[in-house]
Amino acid sequence: MRNTFGNNISITLFGESHGYAVGAVLDGLPAGVKINADYIEKKLDKRRAHGTISTQRREADTLNFISGVRDGRSTGSPITVIFENRDTSSGDYEKFKDMPRPSHADYVAQIKYGGSHDERGGGHFSGRLTAPIVALGAILQSVLEAKGIHIGTHIKKLHSICDRDFGSYSDDIAYLDEALFPVLDTECAEKMREEILTAANMGDSVGGILESAVVGLPAGIGDPWFDTLEGMLSHALFSVPGIKGVEFGLGFGFADKYGSEANDAFATDGEKIYTKTNNSGGINGGISNGMTVIFRCAVRPTPSIRKEQRTVSLAKMENTTLSAGGRHDPAIIHRARAVVDAISAIVIADALASAYGTSYLGG
Amino acid sequence: MRNTFGNNISITLFGESHGYAVGAVLDGLPAGVKINADYIEKKLDKRRAHGTISTQRREADTLNFISGVRDGRSTGSPITVIFENRDTSSGDYEKFKDMPRPSHADYVAQIKYGGSHDERGGGHFSGRLTAPIVALGAILQSVLEAKGIHIGTHIKKLHSICDRDFGSYSDDIAYLDEALFPVLDTECAEKMREEILTAANMGDSVGGILESAVVGLPAGIGDPWFDTLEGMLSHALFSVPGIKGVEFGLGFGFADKYGSEANDAFATDGEKIYTKTNNSGGINGGISNGMTVIFRCAVRPTPSIRKEQRTVSLAKMENTTLSAGGRHDPAIIHRARAVVDAISAIVIADALASAYGTSYLGG
Amino acid sequence: MRNTFGNNISITLFGESHGYAVGAVLDGLPAGVKINADYIEKKLDKRRAHGTISTQRREADTLNFISGVRDGRSTGSPITVIFENRDTSSGDYEKFKDMPRPSHADYVAQIKYGGSHDERGGGHFSGRLTAPIVALGAILQSVLEAKGIHIGTHIKKLHSICDRDFGSYSDDIAYLDEALFPVLDTECAEKMREEILTAANMGDSVGGILESAVVGLPAGIGDPWFDTLEGMLSHALFSVPGIKGVEFGLGFGFADKYGSEANDAFATDGEKIYTKTNNSGGINGGISNGMTVIFRCAVRPTPSIRKEQRTVSLAKMENTTLSAGGRHDPAIIHRARAVVDAISAIVIADALASAYGTSYLGG
Amino acid sequence: MRNTFGNNISITLFGESHGYAVGAVLDGLPAGVKINADYIEKKLDKRRAHGTISTQRREADTLNFISGVRDGRSTGSPITVIFENRDTSSGDYEKFKDMPRPSHADYVAQIKYGGSHDERGGGHFSGRLTAPIVALGAILQSVLEAKGIHIGTHIKKLHSICDRDFGSYSDDIAYLDEALFPVLDTECAEKMREEILTAANMGDSVGGILESAVVGLPAGIGDPWFDTLEGMLSHALFSVPGIKGVEFGLGFGFADKYGSEANDAFATDGEKIYTKTNNSGGINGGISNGMTVIFRCAVRPTPSIRKEQRTVSLAKMENTTLSAGGRHDPAIIHRARAVVDAISAIVIADALASAYGTSYLGG
Repeated sequence: MRNTFGNNISITLFGESHGYAVGAVLDGLPAGVKINADYIEKKLDKRRAHGTISTQRREADTLNFISGVRDGRSTGSPITVIFENRDTSSGDYEKFKDMPRPSHADYVAQIKYGGSHDERGGGHFSGRLTAPIVALGAILQSVLEAKGIHIGTHIKKLHSICDRDFGSYSDDIAYLDEALFPVLDTECAEKMREEILTAANMGDSVGGILESAVVGLPAGIGDPWFDTLEGMLSHALFSVPGIKGVEFGLGFGFADKYGSEANDAFATDGEKIYTKTNNSGGINGGISNGMTVIFRCAVRPTPSIRKEQRTVSLAKMENTTLSAGGRHDPAIIHRARAVVDAISAIVIADALASAYGTSYLGG
Repeated sequence: MRNTFGNNISITLFGESHGYAVGAVLDGLPAGVKINADYIEKKLDKRRAHGTISTQRREADTLNFISGVRDGRSTGSPITVIFENRDTSSGDYEKFKDMPRPSHADYVAQIKYGGSHDERGGGHFSGRLTAPIVALGAILQSVLEAKGIHIGTHIKKLHSICDRDFGSYSDDIAYLDEALFPVLDTECAEKMREEILTAANMGDSVGGILESAVVGLPAGIGDPWFDTLEGMLSHALFSVPGIKGVEFGLGFGFADKYGSEANDAFATDGEKIYTKTNNSGGINGGISNGMTVIFRCAVRPTPSIRKEQRTVSLAKMENTTLSAGGRHDPAIIHRARAVVDAISAIVIADALASAYGTSYLGG
Repeated sequence: MRNTFGNNISITLFGESHGYAVGAVLDGLPAGVKINADYIEKKLDKRRAHGTISTQRREADTLNFISGVRDGRSTGSPITVIFENRDTSSGDYEKFKDMPRPSHADYVAQIKYGGSHDERGGGHFSGRLTAPIVALGAILQSVLEAKGIHIGTHIKKLHSICDRDFGSYSDDIAYLDEALFPVLDTECAEKMREEILTAANMGDSVGGILESAVVGLPAGIGDPWFDTLEGMLSHALFSVPGIKGVEFGLGFGFADKYGSEANDAFATDGEKIYTKTNNSGGINGGISNGMTVIFRCAVRPTPSIRKEQRTVSLAKMENTTLSAGGRHDPAIIHRARAVVDAISAIVIADALASAYGTSYLGG
Repeated sequence: MRNTFGNNISITLFGESHGYAVGAVLDGLPAGVKINADYIEKKLDKRRAHGTISTQRREADTLNFISGVRDGRSTGSPITVIFENRDTSSGDYEKFKDMPRPSHADYVAQIKYGGSHDERGGGHFSGRLTAPIVALGAILQSVLEAKGIHIGTHIKKLHSICDRDFGSYSDDIAYLDEALFPVLDTECAEKMREEILTAANMGDSVGGILESAVVGLPAGIGDPWFDTLEGMLSHALFSVPGIKGVEFGLGFGFADKYGSEANDAFATDGEKIYTKTNNSGGINGGISNGMTVIFRCAVRPTPSIRKEQRTVSLAKMENTTLSAGGRHDPAIIHRARAVVDAISAIVIADALASAYGTSYLGG
């Protein structure tokens, strides 16, 4: 249903980048859940542009709940958050209505919405719409944490540079929770920053791979058909601008394996059951098996670049060239991880609510 | 909503592998659509086990529409297809209730459904449930073909063997439509078959990568948030047993590219607009851009293998070993492609119906 | 979503009156729920045509679960029931494609589905599709009864004859559960039967009002906006052929009252809270308040009558007359009550599942 | 899905009466639809409290679209309207948390949401949430009018006073569109106002019956099962605070009729087909038949009255009495009609979009 996602916990998204505000509605959360503004701000800060490796558009967004929260707790009715749009400079965008940026949504927006599309800042396609997703997802992340379910995402790869694998999930997730640039190996982090600056200096952009872990999810969550855990997660994750691939466990790496190598042997210490490997990424038959859920998202390089590119003037139906000036990100992967965390929290919370009832998410 | 998927065109799936029947309901198709049994049978045949590279369970399934079809045309009410279960030998499965097969759904089924789960043949988790998906998807495939939209899938990779890339989409899709083993390069096809037989002889299994193309889809289909074309396709595709990754266009290959390399330049011949490359896989901002939609699915090796594996006796809470006898497939990737085609047809038809109304599918 | 209804417990309906079968799929029921065939048969028998006051089409329907039930218990996957169509005589119906019966669905079916509509026996519009609703609703009724929630419906009014009001709900519901003709006052029941026979002899038909009670529903079920208990019940109830009005508590009788007369005073015996009257029909603000839920459905006289009526030949675009021969019911209200009970059970179970999780409906 | 309603055109509602704002999101409207603020204001004014017959809470609400509208046209992305809450006096409400008002939502809110419920002004249950419904419904009403579909509602009955029946639908709907007090017979209107004042002076309230007409709806809209036109309309209408019954055509009046009296004979003038009577209220088999859609809503007297009433102190579990001071409406039926019109427009637009695609609403 277009801008609404989820069954028992659902989110409805609205807004345009340079309109009055962007926002979202979270429905289904029980009454009485603590809404911790500091916690949410910390997550929002991870999505925010910082330093020289990001756009110079600075959104000093204040968290503004216009419904569903009173005295720091959920009231049980829908929670709406809005972020007003301020530091906008819309003059840059008009030309993209005629000369669509390659691999950007300019062209399809023109086809789908015609002249009434709000092209400024990408309008409804803007990455800015992920801010309310992060804010509402953070509420659910804190709910999940109270249940012992923790989510963390690092940049596994940026251009040709690879981060180390997850080690201790709990330590690594705690580390990522403090890091604005989410890379586990600090030397590697430095190289990735340099790579982003190099791309920026060339008027270019870079992509990469995000890797996420969800620890503590009980076994039995998800369904075998259609609403598989993989299906629900990927459905929502592909909304994150730039994500073009999602894989679970070994993912595309399964292609090279024999079944005997790929299968995760069950084992027990007499008290609990676990698997000796976790190639399945914590999911069998669409349902969580109690191991850490592992998935990776491919993030394409941001399409808006300063370098001259070939495109078409739609008005003249002529080939032409274009340089997308303005304040664009040479990479969004480090900011996107906050969105991936938030979306994962929404999907996991919804799957838990579908299994155990929404009241489970209460106290 | 669990076993139902889709908004304007929807499918509801039911059945267990060794129960009375498996089946599905297709809702939303307008009245008067021609239902060509031969066309459907041909698609079903692609999903069927053939020769020595597949299970010896042979399902001589007859196409049985129990509602929604009269005199070879849709009546406008829900179309239900069932396949009765016949060549079943259920004795094999009881032990998996106690000793779950590694990476199979046995364990999560036990957690989620407890003792009442129908474990025979995998019950509701069985790949057999894809037969009604293929039958109903075929109806939509024929509808789409009448609109000039064609779908085809080949095995891009099987273990270490790679097929050639798509060349002429129309020729290749026509070729695949005739091929029971969907590989474009015949020499390569032979090697893949050998690889499957080798695995089978070892009591093992292999996985691979499927690559699909949807040609002829008009620009403007899909939505920017949540119901992106990528999100809807992946949501449904992850239901196909064994699929653990879905990527569009360059997918995970985007990670290595600069924006200037990855972006698809727009161009025109003065009459129509196209892109010079198609790294985006025909989708920008969640919406089709008029180019061929390209995606790949990672298919894990089938988890049921003859080789001895370590597992746990749930009753005794003891470590033990297991060999999954029975009639298992050493590879399902060649059969899965029929399911991928069918699911793609369902999702694409639904997206078209959401944009243009279901009557658009009517003819 | 057309033929699917419900959020956490959902039903998908399919079939045509003279096609191969009618059926429905129930999704969301946990594994391990006892499926009592005798219990279901008893409910089906209430919907069946009996004696001289009903159609002579006799459906000796056998309960046929083709998925989701094994060894008398739910498996946790979708439960599908089908009823094959046998005692059909389809020749009667062809003329209604040209000469639509007044107030019947013949005309709108022609507009909506055109020539491919299956007109035989009313096709997908047939009251026969309520058989699978009753069968699946009965499963949920037995689940609700195990929770102390009981549903009963009587004919409050048939033409000019009124039944007495509900007295002791538990006694009356128990009585109705044994009665094929659901009227509390036996003298009144006799008069109603006579009225039906009189109408039948005139080649005419009669309608009336059904009154239903749901006792034992806990307070707090339903939502304030859109998915109110009234909204969900009425949404589903208006699917029952012939229902043209639904009211809760005093319903249309509220129009004559002052607030001070209409309001239900709260009272307590020190242990629990109740209301001294129940004009609200057990629902405030869309949510159950713990009192008996009371609603009434207006049932129109069956439109198919033997008496000559004026209609139009669609082919000739000429006024003409028509006598609907065939085996029609002079009244369906006594049979419809089984459908109202079943639909109420489905909606109530779904509302409970949305509040407490589907697992609540388990053991 | 709780606070979201609709399939292809959907509305999501949020807000609390004395929180920061109430609002709603409209999704699915195509780009380029003219948004006429004056037109919307006129509809909002019909919902507003005027004169002595309504509450003294005066909401000088300014229409505030925070997304989806640019330069007076829809952008194609979700349209969000909010109304900030100003003239609030929240002190009145705290006592209702302990002493629930009879027949009000106070008690069920306490059960469902516990101590975190925002009780001020009724919180999320407040009739104030109908303001955004009216604003967004008005957009759709203007879209429908451009298609020749007009909606109008009058007070058919208020306490014991009855308005005349609809005469010429087009004249009457035009008249109602200008009237703040929606009664067709002016003498009757005067009596109704007096009746409201009488009730107000007694510290009491009155209810009544609203009657609505939808003219110009094409035949073929709606579905036979679940998403019947009656089912969709009633589902949404029961959200309007105070509505406790919905009937179509003769509705409960069908109970007294024979089929031969109730059936609507088809007739033709050689060019088009119509029915000689319209007892069916324009709907057969759940689908519009091309005649005027007619329905009536029973509106209960407002439960908040000044008169002393018996209730319970939840804290002490003791019987007590209560007088609901504050600024309550002695009747809301005349204001509710604007909400009924708006909700009807939403449901009709959604049903049209489901049949013809959302692009049909585009112009």
